[in-house]
Amino acid sequence: MNQSLADRTIEPKTTPHERQLTVVKIGGAAGIDFGPLCDDIAALSRQGRRFIIVHGGSDATTTLSRRLGLEPQFITSPSGHTSRRTDRATLEAFQMACRGIVNQELVRRLVQSGVNAVGLSGLDARLWAGPRKAAVRAIEDGRVRIIRDDYTGAVERVDPRVLTTLLDAGFMPVVSPPALSEACEPINVDADRAAAQTAVALGAQTLIMLSNVPGVLRTAHDDTTLIRCVLRSGLASMDAVAQGRMKNKVLAAREALEGGVSRVIIGDARAASPLSMALEGAGTVFA
Amino acid sequence: MNQSLADRTIEPKTTPHERQLTVVKIGGAAGIDFGPLCDDIAALSRQGRRFIIVHGGSDATTTLSRRLGLEPQFITSPSGHTSRRTDRATLEAFQMACRGIVNQELVRRLVQSGVNAVGLSGLDARLWAGPRKAAVRAIEDGRVRIIRDDYTGAVERVDPRVLTTLLDAGFMPVVSPPALSEACEPINVDADRAAAQTAVALGAQTLIMLSNVPGVLRTAHDDTTLIRCVLRSGLASMDAVAQGRMKNKVLAAREALEGGVSRVIIGDARAASPLSMALEGAGTVFA
Repeated sequence: MNQSLADRTIEPKTTPHERQLTVVKIGGAAGIDFGPLCDDIAALSRQGRRFIIVHGGSDATTTLSRRLGLEPQFITSPSGHTSRRTDRATLEAFQMACRGIVNQELVRRLVQSGVNAVGLSGLDARLWAGPRKAAVRAIEDGRVRIIRDDYTGAVERVDPRVLTTLLDAGFMPVVSPPALSEACEPINVDADRAAAQTAVALGAQTLIMLSNVPGVLRTAHDDTTLIRCVLRSGLASMDAVAQGRMKNKVLAAREALEGGVSRVIIGDARAASPLSMALEGAGTVFA
Repeated sequence: MNQSLADRTIEPKTTPHERQLTVVKIGGAAGIDFGPLCDDIAALSRQGRRFIIVHGGSDATTTLSRRLGLEPQFITSPSGHTSRRTDRATLEAFQMACRGIVNQELVRRLVQSGVNAVGLSGLDARLWAGPRKAAVRAIEDGRVRIIRDDYTGAVERVDPRVLTTLLDAGFMPVVSPPALSEACEPINVDADRAAAQTAVALGAQTLIMLSNVPGVLRTAHDDTTLIRCVLRSGLASMDAVAQGRMKNKVLAAREALEGGVSRVIIGDARAASPLSMALEGAGTVFA
């Protein structure tokens, strides 16, 4: 057998650029069809690009909670960031929605597109670890309330070994919350910021966050006010512009850039080839 | 640094026997505390043994289905094997229970015991694949009824690559249904038989199935009638003895033995050190 031909068959001809690692955060909001996105990921993967997919399960958790008779509640922190009120019963619904519904469907759809996708949560091999908040501060009717039985926190340590093991063997990790607290409890963490920490820990060149908006809008719901580019010097001013869920994405973008990620793009998951579009610079580019 | 000492530190001194691979199927029935079992798995793992953990989620699915207002139904096949009636809504509950509750709790508890556990489903990287049954035959009031919208099947192909990749890097896979149908749908499969197929595909020496009974009983609910040993020549006679869920375990044992697994043990998950006990031959040993 011709050895050089065999080598070419096994290992696609790649440039260093093509072997770059990109972390892709996929929003789970209503209106996103995983089909075109997964086909796009598969096509780019066949070209030799390496991806880690990260997702949350916010909307699926809301739907499931209602089916279980648990009315979803949200908390706004004094700094204006929104998070889900996560008591023990909601934590269980969150895990079922993230792991049992969204992660399984993404993995299934990627496998259907020919990708060797492997689903993980932050619990697996201590992939995402961080402290559980002892007290959550919530603004209610203009006053600060302290909540102590919440299962939320933030990812502070990423153990990259399971990700690098899978990537090196040709698998594509698909990661979702929860993360693991110091007391080995599952905790609800923001998936945008967890994706940023993952990109930093793995030395990814690019972080892409796709959701059901075109990018950061100067005026909410007005797509014509899309902000095309944010330089590092203009990052601070973004805090005033971004509202709601976008606030967490802008914070995640800043954390990724500060951690050494070269480029962050907030793009539209609803496009025909959403990942290709974002990689070409559609959406809001932070550089 | 003393090189031979360093080698000993990194790679525990093992005999070939100690590096043997064992597939452990854990039953999810009520009355099983994962704590002692996970501590036992961790201790044996530190001694150099390698394990693949397999579990189902039958009882968790029943509980969740009821919470979602879906009354669980079971089907008895003409050959007397029992399976869950799995329509689309039940399939979703099954995935949430297996992946979101049982798998997460097993992984979390193993991680707490110091094991680098990684949760997987049969969908991940096409780990468990097989045909979905076009028609399920169910005995109802002595007559055969044909059900066509059931999402059930059996594992016919195990792709071992994700398991060997993780095992070789020091991770412990924890695998649950569903499996993947030929049309890329999730399907409910019997976890005992899937564990057997996994043991065969990986060349495991031992398959252990732990549940809330001491082993195969000659008379149901009478622990004094435990059958200690079944030789290959006596396998056929077991079909008449085993009832209910035990019928699937005996079938799984036979499939494992026929596929080259040296030893199958059906043991008690409720013992103080359930896995150690089973490895020492407690329960019913098929050899």
